[in-house]
Amino acid sequence: MATRREVAELAGVSEATVSRVMNGVGPIKEETRRKVAAAAAELGYQLNALASGFAKGRSGNIGVVLPHVPKVRLFSTYYFSEILSGIGDVLHQAGYGLLLLYRNPQARYDYVSLYRTRRIDACLILGASSLPEEQASVFALADEGLPCCVVDQRFSRAGLPCVGADHRAGAYAAARYMLDAGHRRIGFLNGSPHYSNSVDRYDGYRQALAESGLSPDPELLFEGNYSRKSGQEAAGAIFERLEALDGMLCANDRMAIGAIQGLRERGVAVPERLPVIGYDNSDASSLTDPPLTTVEVPFYEMGRLAAESVLARLAGEHGRASDIEDADGAAGAATVANGLNKAADDVLLPTQLIIRRSC
Amino acid sequence: MATRREVAELAGVSEATVSRVMNGVGPIKEETRRKVAAAAAELGYQLNALASGFAKGRSGNIGVVLPHVPKVRLFSTYYFSEILSGIGDVLHQAGYGLLLLYRNPQARYDYVSLYRTRRIDACLILGASSLPEEQASVFALADEGLPCCVVDQRFSRAGLPCVGADHRAGAYAAARYMLDAGHRRIGFLNGSPHYSNSVDRYDGYRQALAESGLSPDPELLFEGNYSRKSGQEAAGAIFERLEALDGMLCANDRMAIGAIQGLRERGVAVPERLPVIGYDNSDASSLTDPPLTTVEVPFYEMGRLAAESVLARLAGEHGRASDIEDADGAAGAATVANGLNKAADDVLLPTQLIIRRSC
Repeated sequence: MATRREVAELAGVSEATVSRVMNGVGPIKEETRRKVAAAAAELGYQLNALASGFAKGRSGNIGVVLPHVPKVRLFSTYYFSEILSGIGDVLHQAGYGLLLLYRNPQARYDYVSLYRTRRIDACLILGASSLPEEQASVFALADEGLPCCVVDQRFSRAGLPCVGADHRAGAYAAARYMLDAGHRRIGFLNGSPHYSNSVDRYDGYRQALAESGLSPDPELLFEGNYSRKSGQEAAGAIFERLEALDGMLCANDRMAIGAIQGLRERGVAVPERLPVIGYDNSDASSLTDPPLTTVEVPFYEMGRLAAESVLARLAGEHGRASDIEDADGAAGAATVANGLNKAADDVLLPTQLIIRRSC
Repeated sequence: MATRREVAELAGVSEATVSRVMNGVGPIKEETRRKVAAAAAELGYQLNALASGFAKGRSGNIGVVLPHVPKVRLFSTYYFSEILSGIGDVLHQAGYGLLLLYRNPQARYDYVSLYRTRRIDACLILGASSLPEEQASVFALADEGLPCCVVDQRFSRAGLPCVGADHRAGAYAAARYMLDAGHRRIGFLNGSPHYSNSVDRYDGYRQALAESGLSPDPELLFEGNYSRKSGQEAAGAIFERLEALDGMLCANDRMAIGAIQGLRERGVAVPERLPVIGYDNSDASSLTDPPLTTVEVPFYEMGRLAAESVLARLAGEHGRASDIEDADGAAGAATVANGLNKAADDVLLPTQLIIRRSC
């Protein structure tokens, strides 16, 4: 195993600082703690460092709370797996553990106790919706002012920052592309309106239609649950309206792939008879036949930013109380203020239309 | 939120038992604790239950330790995502948190401190290899007799149980299928021999060849790292040997998909010019063109069984010390003995050839 000196050299700090971090003695600048933790991790010393470094009342774990849906293998969806990869990379680099917790959707979830019992220092919420119990649970969390970040679901509430993507612009670009190609009767297979990202996509779609003097036809709106199976099932309803349609937008690639499969089973060729555009630019989108025209969403980056935002918030809190390594107290206070300001803003990452052959 | 009575009714226990679990008062049978924790979780009470229930020195977290490879999005691979889904479902049901931790491959990892510092109660090791530092780390864990399970990597060492799959039989079936179709010059694109599952696949391949009076031709053996890119790169070497080949086995679907892509770029049609068989039966395998003939591995079930094995071990340990709800002491002792016996055995799940169109 590495020596204290090796860790100090790699981190670019003194051996005394390594000891202070390792033993949790005295206040340590968060950035320094992280450099030492990263160096110690790289050299195989991470656990001892954590054990001591977090002895001051932190768990060293960031909670990632996911909805538990029986029979759905969440990790196997592009959406969650990419977001988790981004979160995981940032937490690993910072020397934190990632505590995965499932909540039962539609039941109240007691986020606050996770902090009180020191199971987590901060929390990232994935797959949240505006269903009453879910919303009440995250609002209770925000009321306590605890460090958290909601991923890809906007609640537009102080203390409940969101890192998401600009789905309105994404769906707008997809609809615009179809309209520019001369299509006029464009259907939309969306997800539940309990997700702000579904609502945003619908808004983008509607806006593009409006600019062409059209409005959404309720008969051409379909709803799935973002699973491939739900896309395949929707194909039945889409098929019944086939004469009224000359294009289909789908709110994710999985539903698009399911819908294309279901349409093919009914003898409908994509894109010849009905062009289809997916959403996400998942791995599968380039593998299918035909490869999907789709909208790229930087989910990995979304996970990274969400994780960075809660770590920045934790660093700010640390700075407030005890950051003696700062040149002066004012600098420490500024960090905190920035951290809080940042936390109050929703961050929406850009999306991009990827043109392949399904449309 | 639910009342104590509702939790008691759902769990089928008395209200007093719910209180004992909630408050961690007195010894509780592990099965009872789990029933109550599951009921409380379902009704939105899981955190308080855990906070109290684990106050007796348990963290309530099971560690899942993954290799960290820069630029590789581990969660986005079928292999890890399915195993994690299985683990996650079991831990959720049992009321445990899943603490994801990355180790740096090739560096010593201090598993033991994770237990000592109460970050985890047990640990599941994914993506392990027989590289010296990795092996030394897990052997140190086994020496301490701590509850753990290695997933899909056999170390064949007491105290280091493994839940994996019968990859020897899987590769045998794939090679047998090609041989039965009249192919005689079958190449093999395998992963690193530091993984026991690579070695097992090679053994199955060799055995099938041997039964047909053939032996592996070193010129027809290729190595990738289980990534699509490595398959695409291997296509160059495969193309150079094309005249000597009439079939290719690949050790996973990603490499097969990459190899098919690389071969196609060189004008080689699959399966017409060169039949290819993948391995894993990943989501992607049925989406590609051509759909892959492959070997199904029950990764989700593998994750479930691995998680169940460490929970059983924890229950056994609890039983040893304090399971006063058992009818008598002998029953408790039997549980422990079974737990330990089970832990010493490697479990290999069955694999199955799935025939599609790439071969």
